[in-house]
Amino acid sequence: MIAVSGAYQTKFGELWDQSLEDLIVESGEGALADAKISKKKIDLVIVANMLSGKLGGQEHLGSLACQLLGLNGVPAWRVEAACASGGIAINQAVTAIKAGAAKNVLIIGVEKMTDRTNGEIATALMAAAGERERQSGLTFVGLYALMARVYFDKFKASKDDLAYVAIKNHRHASLNPKAQYPFPVELETVLKSSCVASPLHLFDCSPITDGAAAVVMSSEEGGTEIIASQIATDSVELTERDSLTELKATKLAALKAYAEAGVSPEDIDLAEVHDCFSIAEIMAVEDLGFCDKGAGFKKIKAGDFDLGGRLPVNLSGGLKACGHPVGATGVKQIVEIVTQLRGQADQRQVKNAKIGLAHNVGGSGATAAVHILRKL
Amino acid sequence: MIAVSGAYQTKFGELWDQSLEDLIVESGEGALADAKISKKKIDLVIVANMLSGKLGGQEHLGSLACQLLGLNGVPAWRVEAACASGGIAINQAVTAIKAGAAKNVLIIGVEKMTDRTNGEIATALMAAAGERERQSGLTFVGLYALMARVYFDKFKASKDDLAYVAIKNHRHASLNPKAQYPFPVELETVLKSSCVASPLHLFDCSPITDGAAAVVMSSEEGGTEIIASQIATDSVELTERDSLTELKATKLAALKAYAEAGVSPEDIDLAEVHDCFSIAEIMAVEDLGFCDKGAGFKKIKAGDFDLGGRLPVNLSGGLKACGHPVGATGVKQIVEIVTQLRGQADQRQVKNAKIGLAHNVGGSGATAAVHILRKL
Repeated sequence: MIAVSGAYQTKFGELWDQSLEDLIVESGEGALADAKISKKKIDLVIVANMLSGKLGGQEHLGSLACQLLGLNGVPAWRVEAACASGGIAINQAVTAIKAGAAKNVLIIGVEKMTDRTNGEIATALMAAAGERERQSGLTFVGLYALMARVYFDKFKASKDDLAYVAIKNHRHASLNPKAQYPFPVELETVLKSSCVASPLHLFDCSPITDGAAAVVMSSEEGGTEIIASQIATDSVELTERDSLTELKATKLAALKAYAEAGVSPEDIDLAEVHDCFSIAEIMAVEDLGFCDKGAGFKKIKAGDFDLGGRLPVNLSGGLKACGHPVGATGVKQIVEIVTQLRGQADQRQVKNAKIGLAHNVGGSGATAAVHILRKL
Repeated sequence: MIAVSGAYQTKFGELWDQSLEDLIVESGEGALADAKISKKKIDLVIVANMLSGKLGGQEHLGSLACQLLGLNGVPAWRVEAACASGGIAINQAVTAIKAGAAKNVLIIGVEKMTDRTNGEIATALMAAAGERERQSGLTFVGLYALMARVYFDKFKASKDDLAYVAIKNHRHASLNPKAQYPFPVELETVLKSSCVASPLHLFDCSPITDGAAAVVMSSEEGGTEIIASQIATDSVELTERDSLTELKATKLAALKAYAEAGVSPEDIDLAEVHDCFSIAEIMAVEDLGFCDKGAGFKKIKAGDFDLGGRLPVNLSGGLKACGHPVGATGVKQIVEIVTQLRGQADQRQVKNAKIGLAHNVGGSGATAAVHILRKL
């Protein structure tokens, strides 16, 4: 079986005093220390990162991580699948352990975003979309705004409904000292925030974030077991999709993950889902089977997915309030689930959590990774 | 066992009429057609690419390749390890098949480099090196020039000795219609070419190239079997290395690969090695055990590694003369080996080739991948 034996997250935020290299070292050393494993036992390093080449001029992060961490010679690479890079890295580690290619894998998700202007970052992020979408002048929030419009039309939702995603995730983040925005927000604040791409306002959007997260995965008994690891894709461009009110890649990956784990959505005690925009969390809770299609916004407002609700979602604060260093996000979700399953989540701890799910999306839904973890 | 059931290479060169997307489609469809496999059977797509985010504004190539090839839903990602991205992608496919995570994997290596200025490309390539090397003003040819200087001092080699690498690889390329420079060159041409970073002249350097290569790998009997797949790393920065006259990552990956395959260097009938610069091929034939350390330049000059020699090296023309679209190179090496083992290499065919080796390097040696293939 495959266990997560170590987990670590750096503070997420505008980290002016930490470089990409610093974040790799802090998270890597943190996860290794948490796993209490000797560096000599690490036989594979996978780095998840999207934008370091474009924003920082540094590619080749696999070898670089090995150099920085004193893991000379160890096989290593970087994986990129836009904002799903972290989820893919976890999946690759599962595969490597299953194949016998590695016994103890260090996975580091890292992104250093804030050193550039917002314009440069917005342009860089559109590399996760398609050529025609870039040529149309769309931004990422614009792509999700299009989906929100279709969703509004079909299910009679409104801007007010979106706001409850931000309110919930900020409330959770206020209990997470690692979060970029560890404070609650009021309905009025959300609704009065600037419109970015109608109907999405500032508080519907995840922020630009520096940060890293790392886990050690091992072929061993004990700890927190990964009982499903599945990925799926869809077209990069919205125009090629069958529907704009769901992410097919999420549904497909989730279906395969539930089958692999032998569990159903009702068995999930907590989840971290990919709320890059408020509409994305609404679609995610539906696509993952946590509620019916078209009911997500009502259930979020009703408190179903709150700490203390029937299935707490995004206890870390999610991408919205914990922050979204894109390559790190999928790994951070695993760190949060492991922290919860271990009972180490302090004020935001879910009681008797046994099974957790992590859902990581790339682009506007072209890649999805779903992992299910179980406490042993 | 793991077989390469399909292989395809696009023309390498300055492909002004083909976009990144066009190259993905041509190579992907080409490999699928060669494998005579239905698209429905492909259950994993891996894209090897280094610079598309930086040079073309397009990341997320795994999902994009699925969209372009009509492989909707199939798990996919992009891997990056500088110029070794292709070799790592092959290794990931081997691992996925061994783990039972996939049965038929499509691997595409692709790079579109020529749409930018030489300055932009040189800067982008330095992303494979380390921060201190960039700050020192070094270029990639400068890094290898430093290694050449140390090699010259230690083994009494000279610029003239380097020239025979280019002469051999251009001679081979003249027999390969897919090569960027399919023509022979004379000693005088090489020696009189411009000095780029002393002692390396223009003809000591691989060119800037557009191109793609793809293979289909399957868990099946028959065809061409991959009998070893190993990767290793070393420090990204030269200043951290023990020696500058060898690539430790190459030696380590080769040692593991020979052990995995149960063969020795004497058993290898042909090889594609990573000759990004002439000095790199000289170190490679030594580090791979094809001759003693310090003897590489003499053996190359003596014709040991020529078509018709005892162990033909870089029959495709190598990176030097076939071209070096960085993400594609490691996959193209596999395509060349498979073409040779199938007996389909026409004028450059090695007689009775049974075992071939592919050697792919990232950066100035921070990543190395070694694959050994056998004809069944």
